Amino acid sequence: MAADPQYILELTGTFFFAISGAIAGGKYEHDWFGTGFIAFITAIGGGSLRDILLGSYPLVWIDDINILYSILAGIIFTYLFYDFVVHLRRTRLLFDTLGIALFTIVGTEKAISLGVRPDIAAMMGMFTAVMGGVIRDVLTNEVPVIFRKEIYASACLAGAVVYLLLDHFFNSRSISLAVSTIVIVAIRLVAVRFQLTLPAFKKKK
Amino acid sequence: MAADPQYILELTGTFFFAISGAIAGGKYEHDWFGTGFIAFITAIGGGSLRDILLGSYPLVWIDDINILYSILAGIIFTYLFYDFVVHLRRTRLLFDTLGIALFTIVGTEKAISLGVRPDIAAMMGMFTAVMGGVIRDVLTNEVPVIFRKEIYASACLAGAVVYLLLDHFFNSRSISLAVSTIVIVAIRLVAVRFQLTLPAFKKKK
Amino acid sequence: MAADPQYILELTGTFFFAISGAIAGGKYEHDWFGTGFIAFITAIGGGSLRDILLGSYPLVWIDDINILYSILAGIIFTYLFYDFVVHLRRTRLLFDTLGIALFTIVGTEKAISLGVRPDIAAMMGMFTAVMGGVIRDVLTNEVPVIFRKEIYASACLAGAVVYLLLDHFFNSRSISLAVSTIVIVAIRLVAVRFQLTLPAFKKKK
Repeated sequence: MAADPQYILELTGTFFFAISGAIAGGKYEHDWFGTGFIAFITAIGGGSLRDILLGSYPLVWIDDINILYSILAGIIFTYLFYDFVVHLRRTRLLFDTLGIALFTIVGTEKAISLGVRPDIAAMMGMFTAVMGGVIRDVLTNEVPVIFRKEIYASACLAGAVVYLLLDHFFNSRSISLAVSTIVIVAIRLVAVRFQLTLPAFKKKK
Repeated sequence: MAADPQYILELTGTFFFAISGAIAGGKYEHDWFGTGFIAFITAIGGGSLRDILLGSYPLVWIDDINILYSILAGIIFTYLFYDFVVHLRRTRLLFDTLGIALFTIVGTEKAISLGVRPDIAAMMGMFTAVMGGVIRDVLTNEVPVIFRKEIYASACLAGAVVYLLLDHFFNSRSISLAVSTIVIVAIRLVAVRFQLTLPAFKKKK
Repeated sequence: MAADPQYILELTGTFFFAISGAIAGGKYEHDWFGTGFIAFITAIGGGSLRDILLGSYPLVWIDDINILYSILAGIIFTYLFYDFVVHLRRTRLLFDTLGIALFTIVGTEKAISLGVRPDIAAMMGMFTAVMGGVIRDVLTNEVPVIFRKEIYASACLAGAVVYLLLDHFFNSRSISLAVSTIVIVAIRLVAVRFQLTLPAFKKKK
């Protein structure tokens, strides 16, 4: 199992997400338990929701203790290098962007392997990536991450669609994986850099 | 399947709920993706929660793409007729009221068909109707809809009980359906019109 | 089934949690329906989340109507003795503390009986105890209970670990039960009395 690239992606994405959750928790002067709790929810929330929606049991982190170790590693890493990860705005953005890119692909692949339609699978990929952050934001009374001004969840959905298209036409997992990850990271970083937003739903008067 | 009245109710209720969600999303100047996300969560939240609580898989919207099409239709309808649906207070109330009435009956019937007790089925009907809105309100930092001043969730519970009683005594689905829908719509509209509220839990001093 | 001590613990814990939820609901001048709704969610939220995460169906309260009766009893008790339960700060603390202690043990035992690892079972015990309150707090826009200053969820986790250790070494259910309940209650009451907190995650400058 250790050699499976999806498994390594999942552990790596979990590590990045735990860091992002621990930063969010630490900001509010929570104690280390509350901060760890938020890091945990952030890291497992999206994948758990995906598996619950798909009825896929057991949940990954209940079945495999390495997920918890990845989260623990992310929390300890954040604690040790707090100033480094928190104050460098670009560093935080990078951790979060890598996390959502990896989780989008992991979630899309998992959904496909469970036999759902590609359009639902793309949504599940996006859910895997963003819902942990949404739950984190609801718990800490932030505006949920999906409503951030700069393109965010839509980048994940776009990446999932690219993954599914490449997988359909080329049937090479490494190409699909690499290109779709790059697509998500690129869209998100360019959107933040140039403050790109999608059009508002409500028409301007 | 297309001729099944429960199925048509479900698609229609989904359409109304997506409109109600898109209005809530649009109000906050979200982009069309965030607005669509809220519309989606509002429309599928209650039914998904019901099915997850009952362990009934696959979830309706994962199994049947028409649910997503209904949501999409609701979002596009809201976008095209934004001023119409938003500014006419009575129109919005009507969409929401029709949505909760249909979803209450759909949810109650679904729960009964899964073999749960009638009292639990009535609660599941109410959950189907109101929990999508509750999740929407939590995500947009509104006071959850269940705590609205005027009688709301209790109208759904009353309608579900009426449905189950009629179903028990008359065994005519169309009568049960028509009467209980009218009961919910009537209670809710009368409550809003005359600002009827239930007694407060805390005794006045 | 009625003679099973876990079952009596569950009904008693549910009763205490319903009281704690009804107090939270009543504070906000909700009507009795909204207050009952919050009491219900508080009482069944943690156990439902545990069972959904573990894929254990049917959920306890859907299968067994006595859970609903316990909740109803808690709501009526709170209504009748409102001034008593609300104004005596120590009384409220005691109800909540007994509730989390009982639910921690019930949740840990349930998870073990479903065959999960002891570390996951301890987390499930804590979830059972605190997540109903977390959902209650999210719905009423309070800061979630897990982030309270004084030691709270960590007391549950500690109690669950004590339970599992005693169970492993002594194999006497009544000893494990009594000692771990006392541990949770003692940690929590001492923490509130002396305002004990865990160290902050963010290092002080």
